[in-house]
Amino acid sequence: MNKVAVYRKEHFNAAHRLFNASFSEAENDRIFGKCNNPNFHGHNYELVVKVVGVPDEKTGFVFDTKLLSDIIKAEIVNKFDHKNLNLDLEEFKNLNPTAENISIVIYTILREKLPKELELQIRLYETERNFVEYPA
Amino acid sequence: MNKVAVYRKEHFNAAHRLFNASFSEAENDRIFGKCNNPNFHGHNYELVVKVVGVPDEKTGFVFDTKLLSDIIKAEIVNKFDHKNLNLDLEEFKNLNPTAENISIVIYTILREKLPKELELQIRLYETERNFVEYPA
Amino acid sequence: MNKVAVYRKEHFNAAHRLFNASFSEAENDRIFGKCNNPNFHGHNYELVVKVVGVPDEKTGFVFDTKLLSDIIKAEIVNKFDHKNLNLDLEEFKNLNPTAENISIVIYTILREKLPKELELQIRLYETERNFVEYPA
Amino acid sequence: MNKVAVYRKEHFNAAHRLFNASFSEAENDRIFGKCNNPNFHGHNYELVVKVVGVPDEKTGFVFDTKLLSDIIKAEIVNKFDHKNLNLDLEEFKNLNPTAENISIVIYTILREKLPKELELQIRLYETERNFVEYPA
Amino acid sequence: MNKVAVYRKEHFNAAHRLFNASFSEAENDRIFGKCNNPNFHGHNYELVVKVVGVPDEKTGFVFDTKLLSDIIKAEIVNKFDHKNLNLDLEEFKNLNPTAENISIVIYTILREKLPKELELQIRLYETERNFVEYPA
Amino acid sequence: MNKVAVYRKEHFNAAHRLFNASFSEAENDRIFGKCNNPNFHGHNYELVVKVVGVPDEKTGFVFDTKLLSDIIKAEIVNKFDHKNLNLDLEEFKNLNPTAENISIVIYTILREKLPKELELQIRLYETERNFVEYPA
Repeated sequence: MNKVAVYRKEHFNAAHRLFNASFSEAENDRIFGKCNNPNFHGHNYELVVKVVGVPDEKTGFVFDTKLLSDIIKAEIVNKFDHKNLNLDLEEFKNLNPTAENISIVIYTILREKLPKELELQIRLYETERNFVEYPA
Repeated sequence: MNKVAVYRKEHFNAAHRLFNASFSEAENDRIFGKCNNPNFHGHNYELVVKVVGVPDEKTGFVFDTKLLSDIIKAEIVNKFDHKNLNLDLEEFKNLNPTAENISIVIYTILREKLPKELELQIRLYETERNFVEYPA
Repeated sequence: MNKVAVYRKEHFNAAHRLFNASFSEAENDRIFGKCNNPNFHGHNYELVVKVVGVPDEKTGFVFDTKLLSDIIKAEIVNKFDHKNLNLDLEEFKNLNPTAENISIVIYTILREKLPKELELQIRLYETERNFVEYPA
Repeated sequence: MNKVAVYRKEHFNAAHRLFNASFSEAENDRIFGKCNNPNFHGHNYELVVKVVGVPDEKTGFVFDTKLLSDIIKAEIVNKFDHKNLNLDLEEFKNLNPTAENISIVIYTILREKLPKELELQIRLYETERNFVEYPA
Repeated sequence: MNKVAVYRKEHFNAAHRLFNASFSEAENDRIFGKCNNPNFHGHNYELVVKVVGVPDEKTGFVFDTKLLSDIIKAEIVNKFDHKNLNLDLEEFKNLNPTAENISIVIYTILREKLPKELELQIRLYETERNFVEYPA
Repeated sequence: MNKVAVYRKEHFNAAHRLFNASFSEAENDRIFGKCNNPNFHGHNYELVVKVVGVPDEKTGFVFDTKLLSDIIKAEIVNKFDHKNLNLDLEEFKNLNPTAENISIVIYTILREKLPKELELQIRLYETERNFVEYPA
């Protein structure tokens, strides 16, 4: 009951294409529709990082949002912003960059960089109307 | 831990009136205030549908948001948009169209149309300042 | 060059129906589509009132936004909120309550209540995606 | 499964300063950075109050949002709006007004005023990019 | 004074890259920075189309927003959405797809499709923080 | 007709108090109400800077928004963010920090730093519901 969730929102702009190299062209078109444009399309991704813990008695902080912002910028924004997710990021060489998979990749990176005692959850908006949360 | 939540937002505009035919006029006025205007008032409802499941390994999708959008439009938006909830929808003939009840009705309709293995939750904004979630 | 524009945003929820009694039913359907539902539909209207003038040297105000808000609430919100525009408002007995016409009606009411030396403009959002401005 | 969450959003504008009187000036600067400006800075706080319960069969309400709004305004907005949290509120005389601590204070006040059978959660936006939730 | 402005908002998602083939690589990097990523990046573009005219006396419409939406979708969204502006659109073969230039291209296309008596203005959001308007 | 407007949005958080030292306490209370709290209150100010000019033929830019953002941060955000406008800024020692006056001060500072051939306009949001524009 004494735990508080702290959220920090950042953003990045990136290009991507949804497809699976093991599918036929027809299958890719049927499943991914216009998201399968071989020349890519793009999004303004909004990223909300949630950490949960007990506030420190002396500072009143669960985790300093300035520090949280710095970590997200260093580990995620610098890596994803103004990039082509399929071509520029090692993580998506063999992984389809759906919002679901991007959120898992971001979670995995940040989990390493944040104190173990803090719970972590990622919310990622691909558009204002399509978004995901991991873990659910 | 490997489950991801996927959200899709849609909207519809509708008229409604809050009242209970078994209440006296005075009771309806006291409980529902100006929402009890017999000539109706209306809202731009924003509907957020959340489904939770494990991403498919080949597509990277929990559930294709394009398909989710199509289902919401076919089952909910076509039925609710530019309608009078009290007069035009069978579901509210004997059920007060509060945000709480509308969210339960929408949940019940969509639950039938979505795969059983996906968890489902409805968030409904009546205004930017009043909204509900079902199940809580 | 020394004029400043001051904006105040308020909102109201109302039901309406678009149609012209002199049109045939088929014409009304063709022109107004689902907005012609005889049982009405509704919106959360967002109203932005702009006044332009020279800031008072002593207060630094063009016009106190608290006072502007009080005037909008007294003259517009109290009259339009939780109402059926077609049935409850004299102004729309013979005037189709399109966003265009609603903005002109609001302008006409507020023009009377605000100091003559202030320029006035109305912006009205029927939905986040459809809005109007009067005078243009 | 028959529980519904009802949310009501309100706002207040306040000044505050983050610091701990038992820290040295250098420590306060290192930990709280520019939030430690001794002359204070301020925010437009957005407050979202969530209550969870079973809708009443006769009204269709978990809890009337008009009444919820009245309680939040009487107990929180009147107390916090246009105030200096450090200087004007007894609660922060010896408690650092971080978003975490403000959300706990608001929870404690509202918990007393709302029916025991309703679950309660507070979400507080300090800015669009920094927000907290209590209990987590 | 009897003119009303009518606005319709649509959106599209696209990839692009900013560069000028006649510049050296160093010049492109200096001028366009990370926007010059040769693998492209992308945005959720929000497009607001403004038309200005006198409301029709019988319909109360300056221009039916449903029809305006249909025209924008047919002429702009279908052409720009889920596309790579540099590679997929003839218009940007020799024109840098800055927000400024995209807005001029959209204006030129829509100007042909809309009645001559309506004034037209384009507002284009590349991100929530960067946007343009044409003509100014 | 070949001019394009380019907008850049930034923000800062600040405390302020509205009052005029030459007014009596009663006058200050009557005119500025709760904004006259002697302990200050605060806001998240959103600042939108508009520049208008002809796009450069080679770059397609009216003015690089990255550079515009850098100038706004260096000249305005660094000066206003996490400050007490009345106590920390020379400009408001004898000028009431109303939104009107803040926008004029910001205009005056930026006008010096931006190319003369660009037209300049400031929009400042004190809250989502109260905002100003200078020059009008």
